[in-house]
Amino acid sequence: MRIALAQLNYIIGDFDRNVSLIKQNILKAKESGAELIVFSELNICAYPPQDFLEFDDFILKCYAAAEVIAKDCIGIAAIIGLPVRNKKLEGKNLFNAALVLSDGKIADEVHKALLPTYDIFDEYRYFEPEHTFHCINFKGIKIALTICEDLWNIEDDPMYITSPMDMLIKEKPKLMINIAASPFDHSHAETRKAILKRNALKYDLPLIYVNHVGAQTEIIFDGGSVGMNANGTIVHELNYFHEDFSIFDFDANRGLLTSAEFSPVIKHDHTKIASIHDALILGIKDYFSKQNFKKAILGLSGGIDSALVTYLASKALGPENVHTILMPSEFSSKGSIDDSLDLLKTLGVSHDIIPIKDLLDQYLLSLKPIFKDLPFSIAEENIQARIRGGLLMAESNKFGYILLNTSNKSEISVGYGTLYGDMCGGLSVIGDIYKTQVFELCRYINRNGVIIPENILTKPPSAELRPNQKDSDSLPEYDILDKVLFEYIENRCGPSEIISMGFDEALVRRVLKMVNTNEYKRHQTPPILRVSPKAFGKGRRMPIVGRYLS
Amino acid sequence: MRIALAQLNYIIGDFDRNVSLIKQNILKAKESGAELIVFSELNICAYPPQDFLEFDDFILKCYAAAEVIAKDCIGIAAIIGLPVRNKKLEGKNLFNAALVLSDGKIADEVHKALLPTYDIFDEYRYFEPEHTFHCINFKGIKIALTICEDLWNIEDDPMYITSPMDMLIKEKPKLMINIAASPFDHSHAETRKAILKRNALKYDLPLIYVNHVGAQTEIIFDGGSVGMNANGTIVHELNYFHEDFSIFDFDANRGLLTSAEFSPVIKHDHTKIASIHDALILGIKDYFSKQNFKKAILGLSGGIDSALVTYLASKALGPENVHTILMPSEFSSKGSIDDSLDLLKTLGVSHDIIPIKDLLDQYLLSLKPIFKDLPFSIAEENIQARIRGGLLMAESNKFGYILLNTSNKSEISVGYGTLYGDMCGGLSVIGDIYKTQVFELCRYINRNGVIIPENILTKPPSAELRPNQKDSDSLPEYDILDKVLFEYIENRCGPSEIISMGFDEALVRRVLKMVNTNEYKRHQTPPILRVSPKAFGKGRRMPIVGRYLS
Repeated sequence: MRIALAQLNYIIGDFDRNVSLIKQNILKAKESGAELIVFSELNICAYPPQDFLEFDDFILKCYAAAEVIAKDCIGIAAIIGLPVRNKKLEGKNLFNAALVLSDGKIADEVHKALLPTYDIFDEYRYFEPEHTFHCINFKGIKIALTICEDLWNIEDDPMYITSPMDMLIKEKPKLMINIAASPFDHSHAETRKAILKRNALKYDLPLIYVNHVGAQTEIIFDGGSVGMNANGTIVHELNYFHEDFSIFDFDANRGLLTSAEFSPVIKHDHTKIASIHDALILGIKDYFSKQNFKKAILGLSGGIDSALVTYLASKALGPENVHTILMPSEFSSKGSIDDSLDLLKTLGVSHDIIPIKDLLDQYLLSLKPIFKDLPFSIAEENIQARIRGGLLMAESNKFGYILLNTSNKSEISVGYGTLYGDMCGGLSVIGDIYKTQVFELCRYINRNGVIIPENILTKPPSAELRPNQKDSDSLPEYDILDKVLFEYIENRCGPSEIISMGFDEALVRRVLKMVNTNEYKRHQTPPILRVSPKAFGKGRRMPIVGRYLS
Repeated sequence: MRIALAQLNYIIGDFDRNVSLIKQNILKAKESGAELIVFSELNICAYPPQDFLEFDDFILKCYAAAEVIAKDCIGIAAIIGLPVRNKKLEGKNLFNAALVLSDGKIADEVHKALLPTYDIFDEYRYFEPEHTFHCINFKGIKIALTICEDLWNIEDDPMYITSPMDMLIKEKPKLMINIAASPFDHSHAETRKAILKRNALKYDLPLIYVNHVGAQTEIIFDGGSVGMNANGTIVHELNYFHEDFSIFDFDANRGLLTSAEFSPVIKHDHTKIASIHDALILGIKDYFSKQNFKKAILGLSGGIDSALVTYLASKALGPENVHTILMPSEFSSKGSIDDSLDLLKTLGVSHDIIPIKDLLDQYLLSLKPIFKDLPFSIAEENIQARIRGGLLMAESNKFGYILLNTSNKSEISVGYGTLYGDMCGGLSVIGDIYKTQVFELCRYINRNGVIIPENILTKPPSAELRPNQKDSDSLPEYDILDKVLFEYIENRCGPSEIISMGFDEALVRRVLKMVNTNEYKRHQTPPILRVSPKAFGKGRRMPIVGRYLS
């Protein structure tokens, strides 16, 4: 039996486009002699549809799309994913389902049992978990068809519960198929392959795994679908961060035998830093293309964060679609401007220069009757950042550019940024990257020759909002800070646990207090491209008004 | 048996404060001869603790607090709420629990079964649902103790499942106790009482119900705890929007007999508009007091929205703690300033006047090399709004005022507001109030005499960002717009459903498109005090990049 795998990039709720993409791939599969084509989880509406699932209209459109697609399934069967109505009177009124389309109609239906409801996932908000299971029967071959998480439940997991596969295996299937929407994070691709391998070995069955690819605002799906044999060896792995299509030959006695690739294999460097690099570029690209935006704008400070975002944007959108503004103040160093210009020349990115002194003077003049002779403070620092935000938004509004935010995760964690100033933007590109990772990423980018000027990499980080300001005036050194933040944010360790690791107690308490008291700023941050297992945004839900863990 | 009900206002994660408050109330109950005191759901840590629940440290502090409180439970028992560890190896590792503290220790433990996971609720993210139930035994009396939602499941509900009470009733309890964290919305108080009454009647048992009170950022708990007899009559209802404490006498044969109030009964007008008024005032008050903030600032435009927020803030914080800035532009009418000054005089609220013309001129001058002679557009309109946001934030930063946002729900829905301009603020006060409700609320405030000047109520709404601008230039009339928005947002009707109600098709499609395409702005909105069953914020989760329901 010949099976096609379609790893595609969908748009949430764009049924016309998704259906057309699916139909093209069904045709391609038929032309390749495939008898079955497998798509990813909830591919009809794209993942995650969120509260669109609460609209009857949306569910009806999913059904209608499935019916249209079924009409193309003559001489080929397709496995698609969509929400379906729970016809029982008990429980939530939807299931997260896989349908088997065959002979022009819906031939079988399978529901998800284990509904991820943690981090960015809210599946229990919408779906009822299934409790009964059956193998699908395709041309006399029993196939254990499951949806994403239903294959993630492993016996040594402390949360292990009897899994759908434990029940399906009793029907003696010959093949496992899992359709997924498993998002990228820098630790995830290897975990995922290990889980798939454990399943192949445990059930002694070959496995077809089809994942979603593409970014849905902040959530990035990396693809990496596979065909795996019962001994856990990978027959073929589909591309990462790109759409892909592949064909496998399956023999009920001998497993997955051969594969044919239909797309060029895109070399993917699986190191953590390379994956983050590729994920961010896909994140920017899809944010723009899915909203029909073309051009980005950002403020270039001379620092490493904005330099990195300029580079990433120019890779994602083309340098001709990136525009920058340099907005020096009296506290900006001459070097900052020269370094920025060097970078722009290398990348071929355009810029304007708008000094902010006159605007700052006018603010201070307008506020003089109120501020009187009070000393220079955070208020004046923030006015500068907000003037820059205002100028960027003015060009954005005038010319239709989308503003990219350049805050990094270390700053966002401790609130070292100005709300409505440098925290402006439609999309936060590096808000899930700690400052030490920003350096790492720049060194990776420079691995074959200097793109980001060395000066930018070596000068001490500074917001340049008052004379001779350095980040280290207000913050611990980033190599310590980032470690404490990582333990608190990614590992969810409390203060006593972090202190017991050997970090200075006063420093830990100060850092955690900064993180907690700045929740209000993060509430107003643009969506942040998620590349870590715990990013700020919908995957981390903390009270704004709450006392600190201390 | 004498039973005390403690309806208290907790702070999330402030264990010292919560424990001290609980201990005071235990003492008071003992002094009143009570044998049992009942607190609300998760009262040890306050509701909702959100992802603090993922920190071991937080759970350990909850246990430690319970142990400290247990020591005071000599000669009296207490029912408290907190997260406890699930000791089984299967499932999520916490239960949402009620503990019975007695004789200085934990005497019994009950877990929640029905975990709300919709709208603002995420309980399944953290908790394992309980499947086995038992009555607690207190001094020989069997009590059916349940937690919040476990009493909400009613047989004619399409989502009905066998409920904890259906199982508990088999043990022939003499009394039901339900501890809750049931948030306010303008339709909720009556529903809640109806549900409680149905339970009393169905199980033919008296009922003690203790609810949370106070605002946790955007979520407002209204209290309204009750003692109800088996025939559904209310023996005594505790205050709404205020802490309260009450004593009931219970006889196992005759039910709840008498009550004694320990706080003055605060007259509460249960009309929808009066409840919203009281809820918003509590929301502002608690946002400030729980963060030790004292003074608010806001921009006063001469329009009805900022007038209403000024009034509400002055009621919540005292007029001496509210400061306003009038920031007229060349497009502001003379009337706008006079109307604002009238209002401020009535309320006794201070103000500054900062004209924005010079700042606007300087922006245009700084941008001249880039904007050249392009015509006046949305960019110039937004610059004005952002200058105002910048001036407000400057005073906020200089003097420690907290900026109150004055956008209403109609504007926020359709994106009629400037990000980083009039959308700035720490808290959105009326972001869950449609424009037509803003008028209604102002008329309610003026019911006994003019507080908000008549001019402000009668002039056509305008952003005053270009000559003779009116909201109705860009938006449908509010009485139509608000109805369409209500069907889409609160009732989650799709376009075809709304059109079938008789609304103009083009208008419906235009409005829904505005709502969907402005999701990106709402992603950066301050937290919005929630008074409706569907507010923007954590209870409504929509994709930013997605195609419209159309």
